[in-house]
Amino acid sequence: MSLLGIGSVAFDTITSAYGTAERVLGGSCTYFSLAASYFTQVRIVAVVGDDFTAREEEVFRRHNIDIRGIQRAPGKTFFWAGEYGANVNEAQTRATELNVFENFAPVIPREYQDSEFLFLGNIQPTLQADVRRQLGGVRLVGGDTMNYWINNTPSELAETLKVMDVLLINDAETKSLAHDTNLPRAAQKVLALGPKVLVVKHGEYGATVFFGDHAFGIGHHPFRAPTLPIEEVRDPTGAGDAFAGGFMGYIARQGELNREVFKRAMFYGGVMGSFAVERFGTERLQGLRHEQIEERFQLFRELTHLG
Amino acid sequence: MSLLGIGSVAFDTITSAYGTAERVLGGSCTYFSLAASYFTQVRIVAVVGDDFTAREEEVFRRHNIDIRGIQRAPGKTFFWAGEYGANVNEAQTRATELNVFENFAPVIPREYQDSEFLFLGNIQPTLQADVRRQLGGVRLVGGDTMNYWINNTPSELAETLKVMDVLLINDAETKSLAHDTNLPRAAQKVLALGPKVLVVKHGEYGATVFFGDHAFGIGHHPFRAPTLPIEEVRDPTGAGDAFAGGFMGYIARQGELNREVFKRAMFYGGVMGSFAVERFGTERLQGLRHEQIEERFQLFRELTHLG
Repeated sequence: MSLLGIGSVAFDTITSAYGTAERVLGGSCTYFSLAASYFTQVRIVAVVGDDFTAREEEVFRRHNIDIRGIQRAPGKTFFWAGEYGANVNEAQTRATELNVFENFAPVIPREYQDSEFLFLGNIQPTLQADVRRQLGGVRLVGGDTMNYWINNTPSELAETLKVMDVLLINDAETKSLAHDTNLPRAAQKVLALGPKVLVVKHGEYGATVFFGDHAFGIGHHPFRAPTLPIEEVRDPTGAGDAFAGGFMGYIARQGELNREVFKRAMFYGGVMGSFAVERFGTERLQGLRHEQIEERFQLFRELTHLG
Repeated sequence: MSLLGIGSVAFDTITSAYGTAERVLGGSCTYFSLAASYFTQVRIVAVVGDDFTAREEEVFRRHNIDIRGIQRAPGKTFFWAGEYGANVNEAQTRATELNVFENFAPVIPREYQDSEFLFLGNIQPTLQADVRRQLGGVRLVGGDTMNYWINNTPSELAETLKVMDVLLINDAETKSLAHDTNLPRAAQKVLALGPKVLVVKHGEYGATVFFGDHAFGIGHHPFRAPTLPIEEVRDPTGAGDAFAGGFMGYIARQGELNREVFKRAMFYGGVMGSFAVERFGTERLQGLRHEQIEERFQLFRELTHLG
């Protein structure tokens, strides 16, 4: 079933111990939609500038991603430059040029009105809520946020959290949002703010999903999915967005919302995140085969399941 | 089958957000042996002072732990005081009084010579190797170490690692020992130093076991066990030792060394570690019932297994 993603499309210059990739296609919406495209039909809303050419369009088209919702504005596309040192979990930002992204006002095209699943990528919370209002009969709303919005727009974020069914954030964001340093306690506090389901991403340790009381009638026991111990993390950029893409894409493909679907979605999220980091930018996410995804899913299962 | 543990017996004064416990029974060997006692017959070698009374002896006896190997020396028992702040994963040491532990020279009593499983708790590496030499036909040697020995006695530790079959350490210790910040790569480097099996403990994220080539003929795919998200971590002291106790105790009970045994041992390690932190000191480990251990094992399984 159709999945709509909003967020950023960008050009990134990324440096890690493995080298530098100059002005490669990036942005949360790009990673998200590429990862999700292996599971379901994806459509996106984003904004790009004059430097976004037929070559970039082609990347989305090859994955059957509907880009009619991409707005074109005069100026340059969002640009980010970052560098990863010994600690690959933390990027040093070298440049952030918002460009056309600064005045992004997402508009949902009429052709997207039948979208059943929605993912609100990490943008200003009021814009996220506004997108939600533009869509009527959506079945599940997933969303992301970051410490910048948690710290600087808490009341706007509080409103937006009420319209999110599933919030996907990391450990630090969960603790910061809940003002609590104990993760499971912080998770319960975040669930009390609105989301029915909270996915907390632990980087190299996988992710845990916490369910609110009566969320989809599936009980409140948490579930933890692993990630693969990867010896060569070339570029961690977009791992969280790829996780969200695998997670939401798998759910959208199933249509049904039950505990087993959420559990497997956690595995597929981890699978897509683990692929993303193996190459610079979106390179790895652009060239996957379905057998490779299933093979890694099985690896994740062997990594965690008793006989 | 019989499991021999060596390490420290101590009195600890522990402060956390939940209060203070004054001079409670602690030490790596105490946590280890109590946790292991739920699985197999345990015997220990340690040193205590005049302040170790019949009351402390009774704790071990109630768990059928053989303490004939406990040496008594004039003076006081090892004393440690520590405090946990907002970050429960890191203790601030307030006092360390080695006392009789300073001159600990472990001697294996004749009655222990038939021990089939050995755990070398975290003491000076040369002493660990010396204990290993005192035991002939042992089937599996597990061991622990810490950053202090990694940094200050690297060559002694290098010798000791050659006689360890299973090394159980945490993420930071693994990276420090391997001089590599990437965990799976660091794990491979540590395995090259001697141990056939490396268990890396990730604190609240569980633990991963890495197998060396041809280790017990069980293949080299890693396996990851969870821990329970615990809302009230009263006192994390001894969690790693309790993990080692559950891990080694389960293996000793099985007798057989295959991949499934190691996998389940990882789960039982996590189970015992998760109990340890729920109360101050060894309180929780002193009063468990087997049904509670099995119940938590099932919780761990539900937390991680797809349907």
